[in-house]
Amino acid sequence: MTEKIDEKKVTPRSQDFAAWYNELIIRAELADYSPVRGCIVFRPDGFAIWENLRDELDRRIKQTGARNAYFPLFIPQSFLQKEAEHVEGFAPEVAVVTHAGGKELEEPLIIRPTSETIIHYMFAQWIHSHRDLPLMINQWCNVVRWEMRTRPFLRTSEFLWQEGHTAHVTRDEAERETLTMLEVYRSFVEDYLAVPLIAGRKSAAERFPGAEETYAIESLMPDGRALQCGTSHYLGQNFARAFEIRFLDENNELQHPHQTSWGVSTRLLGAIVMSHGDDQGLRLPPSVASMQVVVVPIWRKPGEAERVLSTSREVAGKLAEAGLRVTHDEREGVTPGFKFNDWEMRGIPLRIEIGPRDVAAGEVVLARRDIAGPAGKSKAPLAEVAPRVESILEQIQLNLYRQAKAAADSNTRQFDDYAKLCAQMAEEGSGGFAEVYWCGNPACETKIREETRATCRAIPLNQHQEGGPCIACGQPAIERAFFARAY
Amino acid sequence: MTEKIDEKKVTPRSQDFAAWYNELIIRAELADYSPVRGCIVFRPDGFAIWENLRDELDRRIKQTGARNAYFPLFIPQSFLQKEAEHVEGFAPEVAVVTHAGGKELEEPLIIRPTSETIIHYMFAQWIHSHRDLPLMINQWCNVVRWEMRTRPFLRTSEFLWQEGHTAHVTRDEAERETLTMLEVYRSFVEDYLAVPLIAGRKSAAERFPGAEETYAIESLMPDGRALQCGTSHYLGQNFARAFEIRFLDENNELQHPHQTSWGVSTRLLGAIVMSHGDDQGLRLPPSVASMQVVVVPIWRKPGEAERVLSTSREVAGKLAEAGLRVTHDEREGVTPGFKFNDWEMRGIPLRIEIGPRDVAAGEVVLARRDIAGPAGKSKAPLAEVAPRVESILEQIQLNLYRQAKAAADSNTRQFDDYAKLCAQMAEEGSGGFAEVYWCGNPACETKIREETRATCRAIPLNQHQEGGPCIACGQPAIERAFFARAY
Repeated sequence: MTEKIDEKKVTPRSQDFAAWYNELIIRAELADYSPVRGCIVFRPDGFAIWENLRDELDRRIKQTGARNAYFPLFIPQSFLQKEAEHVEGFAPEVAVVTHAGGKELEEPLIIRPTSETIIHYMFAQWIHSHRDLPLMINQWCNVVRWEMRTRPFLRTSEFLWQEGHTAHVTRDEAERETLTMLEVYRSFVEDYLAVPLIAGRKSAAERFPGAEETYAIESLMPDGRALQCGTSHYLGQNFARAFEIRFLDENNELQHPHQTSWGVSTRLLGAIVMSHGDDQGLRLPPSVASMQVVVVPIWRKPGEAERVLSTSREVAGKLAEAGLRVTHDEREGVTPGFKFNDWEMRGIPLRIEIGPRDVAAGEVVLARRDIAGPAGKSKAPLAEVAPRVESILEQIQLNLYRQAKAAADSNTRQFDDYAKLCAQMAEEGSGGFAEVYWCGNPACETKIREETRATCRAIPLNQHQEGGPCIACGQPAIERAFFARAY
Repeated sequence: MTEKIDEKKVTPRSQDFAAWYNELIIRAELADYSPVRGCIVFRPDGFAIWENLRDELDRRIKQTGARNAYFPLFIPQSFLQKEAEHVEGFAPEVAVVTHAGGKELEEPLIIRPTSETIIHYMFAQWIHSHRDLPLMINQWCNVVRWEMRTRPFLRTSEFLWQEGHTAHVTRDEAERETLTMLEVYRSFVEDYLAVPLIAGRKSAAERFPGAEETYAIESLMPDGRALQCGTSHYLGQNFARAFEIRFLDENNELQHPHQTSWGVSTRLLGAIVMSHGDDQGLRLPPSVASMQVVVVPIWRKPGEAERVLSTSREVAGKLAEAGLRVTHDEREGVTPGFKFNDWEMRGIPLRIEIGPRDVAAGEVVLARRDIAGPAGKSKAPLAEVAPRVESILEQIQLNLYRQAKAAADSNTRQFDDYAKLCAQMAEEGSGGFAEVYWCGNPACETKIREETRATCRAIPLNQHQEGGPCIACGQPAIERAFFARAY
């Protein structure tokens, strides 16, 4: 049995973070590689996390007034070409359908890499008057971008996401919508996924193709690289002009609406795995865990089984009644130690152990996944299990955030010396976030990228510091920006 | 204003059922045509019905023990060819990706028309022992079948569906699963969508390509044609052999599992529209309606507005608190009559009218969408609105089913005379269901199809009649079958 457990161990994070990540996803059965290049299979334990995440975010998106709809998977090739920057950004990575129904198509169809073009084409049919605005649409769907290098969840040829698309009468209202959604994403990812973030504006070089301004939430992973977790774009009137979307304003004059788009994807599953996992396996925030609690009955002598099982089943039943996602591990032929390791690998936030002595004492042992060893264990009287579990799950949710925040903070540094920035970024696996004054000149950004491989991840909003010399050129700069090597 | 309402009217059902259907979907804003051939856009009012339907069916599917997962959109062309009947059935209507990432692909990729092949490929990686079974997976996704003639919801090049795929140790268990899912579909469509059905076995000619047995739920539409609403297939070991899925049984011998697949699609939205709609518009079952209740405040003199609005808002608030989906129509510049027609077109099950006299009397008027005119109206005291509305919505759900069932029953006939069957099917728009003895000989089925355009829709299970002469050849037959012209 011992061998079997060891076989299931993953490469330690400190030894090879990338190997740890890839192995963990397979071993914890979140996903599997597929026979199609760059595409993965979301297995039930991974997809359940996505469903929990999606349902909560969907609720929050609807609260802002957006409604769900569904647009075609296919986009006529000519549509992509209507917005100059957009086609330049996406044309190299699209998948193209040339044949269908046994015939060659007159015009090839592109599998959507994002849906601005076809959605704006439809907006032009639906928007006639200022009374039709704001129009706020969200879509949950699959998209395809033929990437050269792929990694499960982080970058796959096909992925799942939501994409919001809105049209507004005024520039001001559209800009507010862009920032509203940035904040929806920030609070959702920090509170619900327990992943700490930096939110801010993107540099011109990092903007969405066709946008006037892009905002993003970025998180620092334990290997010192930043992960873009979501984006919100102010599109101005670029697409409205390209797709001839016009409305009659209150003065009966034709205007183009101001538009936004915003999205998060299955990449968030990668953020959860990397931010919280350890060498024993996943550690899932209770909010999104497929199972929040596992009850493990423990007995040695056959005579003990009945007493233990009747109690452990009752405990599991009570927790389910309280609305918790709970599983009862009745497997035979494997030891309790094997079960513990198995559920630790799968990242279940809380384990409840019930043995003959616990039954006799009228109590259970609660073992937290977020705190290893005896420090994470406590006892609870049988009658109080449900409220105690609910309280501990809340603590675990907060603690996972605190731990991830502390790790990110310890790898976030301010630099005013370019040589020190270069030295920091040169160390493999410890780049981290560098907070620096940047004058905004693209040449300085290019210099930093080429010499340190770090890119501008975000320029925080509402900065109030005094300003200082640009880290790259020394000219006066008024804003700090976060640079990092990125996924 | 009157003209405006008339403009919005649809062609009467009795005049042109197909035109009525197409116009209604556009006018009620359930869907719109897209710039991609055969693909539609699901607009928010239509997609909300799909979401309500999907969430409830998803809950019922999970109750059976299946879990959701997600598999790639793309299927290697060679996969489709591994099961002989399967490739013959689907190859003519697939869409093919030949280029991606700027290069021609070595092997073309097919957009999934259904996912048996790629899912069974993965099953072969996951199934090793009888302990891995049953494996029960469900997937909600988009699929593409390049159809020649398309109609919104009923037959589109891309559609949304769920597809369940299971693997079992024994034939018996797999056959039971097939019938379990048939019953899940039957009860869901009848209870939740209020659409009456006939459930049964398909003839060999109508089987899913690659299946040993196909079961289906079929509904008779008001124009006398049958609509297949869902299917459940027993696949035997055909795909297990093609994809080399094997498990060690309890005697340590290698076996192929027995498999099933089952699915329903956005076609169900078409069933709802056709089964319940009338010349005034949609009539939505309360269970799936995007909005269940609309509150319309009515006033003429400016002084009345405040009193009426404060009451109507309070009523809407109370209904929302009670968990109902309710909207409050505060639009200005349109008459109450315009609003009534608008909400009738959109099929909202119940309208609440509140005018100054109602406020004074402490009551509201409830107008049911399923019963036209004064017979569908009643009054309720303000204090009792929520429970009365809940009770009426339940009645509407049942009544829509009863009305649809009565219509289908009145167009279902038993025939023992072939000439009469032919005469019935020759009458445009009144074919209906024909219940006939059929000997099971494919030649008889072909004869009926060629001479009447009616196909075998379903052979009901558990028949106990005496048997009789086959409607086509006169030879002894033991089972009755339902024939109809079909969508």
